[in-house]
Amino acid sequence: MDYFSILGVIVALAAIIGGNALEGGHIDALLNGPALVIVFGGTIGAILLQTPMSIFIHAMRQAGSVFVPPKHKIQPAIKKMVKWSNVARKEGLLGLESIAEKESDLFVRKGMQLLVDGSEPEVIRAIMDVELESAEHHDLQAAKMFESMGGYSPTIGIIGAVMGLIHVMQNLADPSKLGAGIATAFVATIYGVGLANLFLLPFGNKLKTLALTKSHYREMIIEALFQLPKVKTREISNPSYRDI
Amino acid sequence: MDYFSILGVIVALAAIIGGNALEGGHIDALLNGPALVIVFGGTIGAILLQTPMSIFIHAMRQAGSVFVPPKHKIQPAIKKMVKWSNVARKEGLLGLESIAEKESDLFVRKGMQLLVDGSEPEVIRAIMDVELESAEHHDLQAAKMFESMGGYSPTIGIIGAVMGLIHVMQNLADPSKLGAGIATAFVATIYGVGLANLFLLPFGNKLKTLALTKSHYREMIIEALFQLPKVKTREISNPSYRDI
Amino acid sequence: MDYFSILGVIVALAAIIGGNALEGGHIDALLNGPALVIVFGGTIGAILLQTPMSIFIHAMRQAGSVFVPPKHKIQPAIKKMVKWSNVARKEGLLGLESIAEKESDLFVRKGMQLLVDGSEPEVIRAIMDVELESAEHHDLQAAKMFESMGGYSPTIGIIGAVMGLIHVMQNLADPSKLGAGIATAFVATIYGVGLANLFLLPFGNKLKTLALTKSHYREMIIEALFQLPKVKTREISNPSYRDI
Amino acid sequence: MDYFSILGVIVALAAIIGGNALEGGHIDALLNGPALVIVFGGTIGAILLQTPMSIFIHAMRQAGSVFVPPKHKIQPAIKKMVKWSNVARKEGLLGLESIAEKESDLFVRKGMQLLVDGSEPEVIRAIMDVELESAEHHDLQAAKMFESMGGYSPTIGIIGAVMGLIHVMQNLADPSKLGAGIATAFVATIYGVGLANLFLLPFGNKLKTLALTKSHYREMIIEALFQLPKVKTREISNPSYRDI
Amino acid sequence: MDYFSILGVIVALAAIIGGNALEGGHIDALLNGPALVIVFGGTIGAILLQTPMSIFIHAMRQAGSVFVPPKHKIQPAIKKMVKWSNVARKEGLLGLESIAEKESDLFVRKGMQLLVDGSEPEVIRAIMDVELESAEHHDLQAAKMFESMGGYSPTIGIIGAVMGLIHVMQNLADPSKLGAGIATAFVATIYGVGLANLFLLPFGNKLKTLALTKSHYREMIIEALFQLPKVKTREISNPSYRDI
Repeated sequence: MDYFSILGVIVALAAIIGGNALEGGHIDALLNGPALVIVFGGTIGAILLQTPMSIFIHAMRQAGSVFVPPKHKIQPAIKKMVKWSNVARKEGLLGLESIAEKESDLFVRKGMQLLVDGSEPEVIRAIMDVELESAEHHDLQAAKMFESMGGYSPTIGIIGAVMGLIHVMQNLADPSKLGAGIATAFVATIYGVGLANLFLLPFGNKLKTLALTKSHYREMIIEALFQLPKVKTREISNPSYRDI
Repeated sequence: MDYFSILGVIVALAAIIGGNALEGGHIDALLNGPALVIVFGGTIGAILLQTPMSIFIHAMRQAGSVFVPPKHKIQPAIKKMVKWSNVARKEGLLGLESIAEKESDLFVRKGMQLLVDGSEPEVIRAIMDVELESAEHHDLQAAKMFESMGGYSPTIGIIGAVMGLIHVMQNLADPSKLGAGIATAFVATIYGVGLANLFLLPFGNKLKTLALTKSHYREMIIEALFQLPKVKTREISNPSYRDI
Repeated sequence: MDYFSILGVIVALAAIIGGNALEGGHIDALLNGPALVIVFGGTIGAILLQTPMSIFIHAMRQAGSVFVPPKHKIQPAIKKMVKWSNVARKEGLLGLESIAEKESDLFVRKGMQLLVDGSEPEVIRAIMDVELESAEHHDLQAAKMFESMGGYSPTIGIIGAVMGLIHVMQNLADPSKLGAGIATAFVATIYGVGLANLFLLPFGNKLKTLALTKSHYREMIIEALFQLPKVKTREISNPSYRDI
Repeated sequence: MDYFSILGVIVALAAIIGGNALEGGHIDALLNGPALVIVFGGTIGAILLQTPMSIFIHAMRQAGSVFVPPKHKIQPAIKKMVKWSNVARKEGLLGLESIAEKESDLFVRKGMQLLVDGSEPEVIRAIMDVELESAEHHDLQAAKMFESMGGYSPTIGIIGAVMGLIHVMQNLADPSKLGAGIATAFVATIYGVGLANLFLLPFGNKLKTLALTKSHYREMIIEALFQLPKVKTREISNPSYRDI
Repeated sequence: MDYFSILGVIVALAAIIGGNALEGGHIDALLNGPALVIVFGGTIGAILLQTPMSIFIHAMRQAGSVFVPPKHKIQPAIKKMVKWSNVARKEGLLGLESIAEKESDLFVRKGMQLLVDGSEPEVIRAIMDVELESAEHHDLQAAKMFESMGGYSPTIGIIGAVMGLIHVMQNLADPSKLGAGIATAFVATIYGVGLANLFLLPFGNKLKTLALTKSHYREMIIEALFQLPKVKTREISNPSYRDI
């Protein structure tokens, strides 16, 4: 669980609602049905039109990993691989088979199975690289979907605001409705800008970072897996790879 | 048929029109002839000036594939190629000729014909790579055309809005026209921003994704076609390529 | 002659002027001397400061090719080269000399002359590649000049608008001047945004496309010229290169 | 200590506060509690949601280096390495061990230790390159965090401004509150734009420059360390590397 | 002297001031002390915070070359090198020593000295390439500094404008000050936008072009210097390199 992300959501909402309260405003002034329909509906409509279904579903699944990110720590992985290396020396590559079956990370398991099967190192590397790139591409498209939504929502907020102003203009003869009407119109702006800057864009950027961290981790896995036997002990125990 | 895309259009329009209705506005307030002429005409004029005719026509044809995207599924393609591989082993490369003639994907058919003709693998790969890149370049330019239109339409909406305001300013002496005039002016803003964010930019982004998916698929085809005989059975039945 | 480009200009102007007329506005309202001086003068001043003279002159010359684009068709070029190839086989490379002298495309002629002179293929390719890249770089800088102008003109339009508003503010005591003054100020916005989005940015983008099409054509020329003798007949008559 | 950076902060604050004073404004007009809560809270919330904790902590640590940048001077480093080179010639690689232990730059020390341990030059280069890239990636992510904050703060300032305007609109019946209310609303705009342009974006850009300068320095270290024995004296005493 | 650049400054200023005069405005309306302090001070403060001192000083020096650009003409350079080539053939490489000492371009001189000293061609190329890249990086950072300033100044202009509006709002009770106050506020917008679009961005872009032209020239120098002896006479007298 990434308490940092949850803290971010709480701090942002507290700042907006708290700032409003400090000014003497009611939270009612920030709630507005039509603005909600326009900004959320419009943003979702645009992204449904833009995104193939498989990416949309993947992005929805990835959204959870903003709060519960997968673990990709280099150090424990290297320890595991040093262990495997010892097993391989003692029992041969076939000795790794039972370990591979217990491995929960499907990517690592696949690499080990290829190794156990006796595939050529170059073939293994090529296969694992394609796997890595294909998954990274998929993850980055999910991240980009949130980024695109963060691009659409403020402009759709402007549509809502302008529609609100049109409504106000048609009631100019009745000045008592003027202020409240404009206020209503402005809420759409807040929804559009707030949705983008407090949720969608941070989501997109976080997913991008997580995708690149996963790839970085996997590159190290591929590299470490095949360089391991060639590298001296001191270098292994003092690895260059840092967790990012 | 991509029902997701159609859903996107419906959701977006329902959100805008429904939001307007919830606010108590009439849909009439969103219909405005001069704004329509300025925003659509200006955007089309700018893009006709910018785009060579061959790209414009290609983009118009591609537009349909947003709702009816071509199928580029890796798994069935690999199954087909495993079948071909068996035919080739039994009947030799010439046995593929009749299969190639029935193949509906012109790209795949071309690759098979080159194979049947006995061209060198390196020559085939070079020819197919040029074909892939040339088509991808063409498709991306079509996608970029919609992206450019999505860049022009909001600014041309601003031209329409400012022209409307000029008109209003010239009738300041007659306050009764004030509100309606400004409302008219604002509709151009909605058209410009809405056209871009609910249609043109999602179109452009979807076409870009489809073009890259096609290239990804074709890369796999090229790769699989020529690696197939060298790869072990287990690797084929457990392929790294995923559909994106 | 590219009638498409001319159509684009006509459609855009008709939309703006027609939309204005439909609203009941006079075209006089869109004509304003000071706005013209500020937006055009400021944009030209900025670009003169930014652009070395040689690029400015090249860009001005290129501007014409938006309406009269050069022809870079792959198919006729390949036919020509097949013909040359036959001449070379019958009469030797020296037989190409008289053909080279009649060639109107200086780039192609240069390649043929190097061939006739008996330069090494690698040297010819290196020389032609430098030529291609140097010309492409030059053409893209011309395209970028229009793009930069399209970036400056809307912001200089804002300068004009704000200057107009200052003028209006100084005459607040005289309300009769208010509306007309603001209208005047807004025309600068229209000039700035319209100049950029209806002319400068489409110009820049079209020149960019033309430059890349020329380079694509020239790459094919270089490739085809030297691969020609090695490629089988069927591949030549069924070429992968498409016109973009 | 980078007095230049401190001067930058002082000049910027003096310009804003001084300009306000010259206009006859009180600094009180620029202080506003709710605006502070909204803009700072919102920006921090967004960045907490976006950034993994390890990058956030690294970025906070890096922030200090804007004012106290690390020293990465090429010339003294080359002098040091020439000295080492002489030691190595006289006492062999093991003679470097005591020098390595005193080296304060951990990156340089690691390179020397690998050298002393007798690792292959190619292995050393590969390890040091990974170290360099990993650290650069980490530093650039810290820089990007400030850049992202500089993207969020102005838009969150707009949220604050619009919320202020809503508040004003609800008190339209009481004109005496009108001016003060709008003023309050505008302070959020100033906070958002000022925070971004006077602090966050310059911070981000400076950290980016420092990260690239460090990498440039380290590339030179790697290159110089291993090219040193092969290069003639004159070239060393007249090095191409300049401090950037 | 680049009269084109000076013309650009004159045209831009004449357009702004002339357009203002045509509208019937006084130049006094464009002069405003507090706006000047805020926009210039804020922009300079931000850039001092962002830029390491060595780059700031380099950028200030480069600024002059916008009006007095260095000469990097390919044709005379090639003539010089043909001459050297003849000297080298007659008198040997040592015969170039006296010519090298008279060479005013330090980059060219360094290349010749390395040649005279008998360094390996590959070593010379590597050293000269590092020199080229290091200088280009340095020059591009200077160009980017002006580009960054051009990004800060309009937003700091907005700070000035909003501060002006706050001041106006606090004097709403006194309507006579309203117009003049708003006018004062708007001048900050003009300063911010004008400074960026008429000076800083064109400066940055010009310096970028000059830096790339210098690198292009130097690449040709390196290439020509070492390819010269191998290339046939006809190719030299008909060089592909064009001045950009």
